[in-house]
Amino acid sequence: MPSALHTVNVALGARSYPIHIGRDLLDRADLVLPHLRTKKVAIVTNDVVGPLYLDRFAAALRRAGVEVAVVVLPDGEAHKDWPTLNLIFDTLLREHCERSTTLVALGGGVVGDMGGFAAASYQRGIPFIQAPTTLLAQVDSSVGGKTAINHPLGKNMIGAFYQPRLVLADTATLATLPARELSAGLAEVVKYGIIRDREFFAWLEQNIDALRALEPNALALAIERSCRNKAEVVAADETEQGVRALLNLGHTFGHAIETGLGYGQWLHGEAVAAGAAMAAELSRRFGWLTAEDAARINRLLERAGLPTFGPALGVPRYLELMAHDKKVEAGKLRFVLPKGIGDAVVTSEVAVAEVEAAIAARCAGGNNP
Amino acid sequence: MPSALHTVNVALGARSYPIHIGRDLLDRADLVLPHLRTKKVAIVTNDVVGPLYLDRFAAALRRAGVEVAVVVLPDGEAHKDWPTLNLIFDTLLREHCERSTTLVALGGGVVGDMGGFAAASYQRGIPFIQAPTTLLAQVDSSVGGKTAINHPLGKNMIGAFYQPRLVLADTATLATLPARELSAGLAEVVKYGIIRDREFFAWLEQNIDALRALEPNALALAIERSCRNKAEVVAADETEQGVRALLNLGHTFGHAIETGLGYGQWLHGEAVAAGAAMAAELSRRFGWLTAEDAARINRLLERAGLPTFGPALGVPRYLELMAHDKKVEAGKLRFVLPKGIGDAVVTSEVAVAEVEAAIAARCAGGNNP
Repeated sequence: MPSALHTVNVALGARSYPIHIGRDLLDRADLVLPHLRTKKVAIVTNDVVGPLYLDRFAAALRRAGVEVAVVVLPDGEAHKDWPTLNLIFDTLLREHCERSTTLVALGGGVVGDMGGFAAASYQRGIPFIQAPTTLLAQVDSSVGGKTAINHPLGKNMIGAFYQPRLVLADTATLATLPARELSAGLAEVVKYGIIRDREFFAWLEQNIDALRALEPNALALAIERSCRNKAEVVAADETEQGVRALLNLGHTFGHAIETGLGYGQWLHGEAVAAGAAMAAELSRRFGWLTAEDAARINRLLERAGLPTFGPALGVPRYLELMAHDKKVEAGKLRFVLPKGIGDAVVTSEVAVAEVEAAIAARCAGGNNP
Repeated sequence: MPSALHTVNVALGARSYPIHIGRDLLDRADLVLPHLRTKKVAIVTNDVVGPLYLDRFAAALRRAGVEVAVVVLPDGEAHKDWPTLNLIFDTLLREHCERSTTLVALGGGVVGDMGGFAAASYQRGIPFIQAPTTLLAQVDSSVGGKTAINHPLGKNMIGAFYQPRLVLADTATLATLPARELSAGLAEVVKYGIIRDREFFAWLEQNIDALRALEPNALALAIERSCRNKAEVVAADETEQGVRALLNLGHTFGHAIETGLGYGQWLHGEAVAAGAAMAAELSRRFGWLTAEDAARINRLLERAGLPTFGPALGVPRYLELMAHDKKVEAGKLRFVLPKGIGDAVVTSEVAVAEVEAAIAARCAGGNNP
């Protein structure tokens, strides 16, 4: 018996799309068919996810009469670059994929980012479907249409806002996900609680162990609630002019960590967790967050298996790296800072000395109080 | 005294923008300022146009208090590729360009295509202004938001639909344009007459010599009328789902010519002219165009200094190259065919034998009648 299908609708007018969440959805070609323009897809995956799920997913589609081309990329953030993206274009062209061919990204955030940007730019845009196989991709990258590749001088610097027609989040794929990556996904889940959903934060405090143990109902509920939170924010602000910036809690610091260590050393979610701890510390210094709420945030992140201290890059290097961040506006750093648990603000009115103090307090080798 | 300023508004809802047409507009920073989000621009140009107009344009902007970064690309369609595009990203990142920085493309179609795609994808989209310096760019690429780079397996295969905030078409820059490139631009001008503006076609028959002699009033009128025609089509169909395909008259054949000879051998407009002659021949064979109207089309193209016969690639090679065209839908070739002068249709209902006959009739080494 198939388990219950959870569906979140991302409301973006003509570009609205459903996110289906549930077990064994990769077998459900019936969920895919209504979203294809012609019965031809190109599945983009990587050499870790491909051997696990590609045959099964492709077979289900082929049984439904869909022609399937395949691109298998090398795994990892280090390959989120132009030469690897070009492997997708090479295949699309060699296989005579047309404007009506649907590109399907089967994998984690990197595959989704690259598949999405390839779909956005191949022939100036072809239909796109996401089949995320990591928790991070299911709760974060699957909503919002952000796609990108990295540049040696900065992360996610080249990309597009491009919406999928469908997201198929098969929770059964999380069984093969390394525990460290599951934790990294939980960083984003916790983030939704911090920035806009106090009730969800409290629920997570009760269910964090069940989630780490992959308890199916808890997983489906957490993914659905996360997607719903993100979908509400994205629907209000598709191209990140306003409230959507709240989703970047921990990201200004986090991107500095990822860039400073070199892509792929820390997982994105790990960097975001340490970044969220830094943001909470900054809020605490401003009196926007009680010491107790800051401690609740750090404790939940730690129970999720996440770091709450950044690496020892040295405070000046953090600031230098942050100056390259996309969230910089007219030379000013912008921060997302919690105001209590379940609310947050975006602000550029932060003295550099306070930022330095918050980094020092929450990074290894810093001036921990 | 500044000469008259012609303005065409491209109506695309929230993404509407003006095209200003006139002499010496590169000195008019006052026309640019209202469209900047912050007083910082990155001008993308090439090593032919740059030495002619960059200093003057940049100086006008700097006098108005605008910070100006510069990227000079190697000239030519052969450089419309990823490594060259990446030169733009390198500079944008090194110069700390932000999401609010405006990218300005100063040059012909290649610079506009690359600058536009760079603007579309840098940090997932920054503001974009076009300052086209060729007739082709002024009458074609400046309207419609098509941007792209080439792939070894196909022209314009990677790109985006991305609208500028302003187009500044300085007709004085045409004085330094080689005659061959002026003619190539006229191919698109004539195209508007063929597909939807019989009166304009007749006007062109009267004024083609004045245009080739760069008579200022004739130029401004032809550019304005061309932009107005294209703007009407694009406003009705921004992402090329329907009527916009009419703008591709001559392009299915033309792209085959460009790809078959290798990028940069024939100018785009030259390939389009020969392609239009092939399309007219195909229409004539169907009885959609009288022999007399087909001859009028060829005669006007020839008076514009354009080829009306394709190169000797051999008919089978034409067909093979056309199969890679973006206008292929479900494996079927699509053609834009004139129905009289001033009207055209898009059709896939064309027997291959007819296509072969039309190519043979209008290519060198073919079976010319």
